[in-house]
Amino acid sequence: MADPDDDLRWRVLARTAVHDYRIFRALAVRAAHPRTGAARDFTVLDTPDWVNVVALTPADEVVLIRQYRHGAERVHVEIPGGMVDPGEAHAAAARRELAEETGYTATTWRHVGTVEPTPAIHGNRLYTWLALDAVVTTACAHDPGEVITTFTAPLAEVTAMLRDGRIDHALVVAAFAHLALAAGELRRPDRG
Amino acid sequence: MADPDDDLRWRVLARTAVHDYRIFRALAVRAAHPRTGAARDFTVLDTPDWVNVVALTPADEVVLIRQYRHGAERVHVEIPGGMVDPGEAHAAAARRELAEETGYTATTWRHVGTVEPTPAIHGNRLYTWLALDAVVTTACAHDPGEVITTFTAPLAEVTAMLRDGRIDHALVVAAFAHLALAAGELRRPDRG
Repeated sequence: MADPDDDLRWRVLARTAVHDYRIFRALAVRAAHPRTGAARDFTVLDTPDWVNVVALTPADEVVLIRQYRHGAERVHVEIPGGMVDPGEAHAAAARRELAEETGYTATTWRHVGTVEPTPAIHGNRLYTWLALDAVVTTACAHDPGEVITTFTAPLAEVTAMLRDGRIDHALVVAAFAHLALAAGELRRPDRG
Repeated sequence: MADPDDDLRWRVLARTAVHDYRIFRALAVRAAHPRTGAARDFTVLDTPDWVNVVALTPADEVVLIRQYRHGAERVHVEIPGGMVDPGEAHAAAARRELAEETGYTATTWRHVGTVEPTPAIHGNRLYTWLALDAVVTTACAHDPGEVITTFTAPLAEVTAMLRDGRIDHALVVAAFAHLALAAGELRRPDRG
């Protein structure tokens, strides 16, 4: 059967390292146009995989963090998460990041979704995990570059924060979309 | 009243251009730790704002595109969108990108949400617009680097695609989350 994507795929001619930024590596990609064959240059960032965690307490409150982000130059409300270490399973990275960033651990875990953060530029995946009955059992272990505060909020309050933009980190919004999809349907808004 | 974020904010000491990649510009940021004052280096990418569009036809089908993404090195199912031009309003960019990429235009538009795509790295915003009663009225005008096919699918099918990962572009997932938030609530999944 014909593959409907055949005439969409660029053929990669070359991938050249430009600069290593530690948290990602810039590559110059030369690729052939899928229809005309004409070569064109693109920049992509080779980036490690990421995880994030929707952790719910026994009272179904969400474990949230506040953290300054250097790209946006302000403090964001987020869920815990971080980079998957080389050779680490994303299931293990989710457990590690939750504990290191917040001190919370949980016994019940479910993988609720995987997204590609910005596939036009980044080549990595973000794995979202749901942790149930999360409780504080350990001390935080922040990286030298991490300054984080932790708090909890009921799911209804998190919904309000997503709606009014207090939570506007796209990867956090996507995580809650996968949580909602695990529970029910997306709907279209009423007109007007 | 004390600002709870005071001790989370890094103080920027320097922002230095590293490389201009055309679709973003790499900057080296030197910033002081909000508690210890110790200087530390971060990389951020100065990136133009983006828009994307959930366009619904008169039959409430979603206008979707298929496009190869060089970061992920594969074809993604997405909604139309792109960069906001310098000096352009995001409302105008949404209308322009929908028409250029798909040939669809619409008379009823609503801004349904704004996210920051990856605020740890990128400094830009993504504005999501809802277009109702979208119909094909014009010819596509693809950039030389764009190879795109357009199709439509009912909202229920899009929900299935989000759930099973056929749609896994995080910024598209976030757009549908804002659509769902405009319509109702996020819910927690059942246990087990």
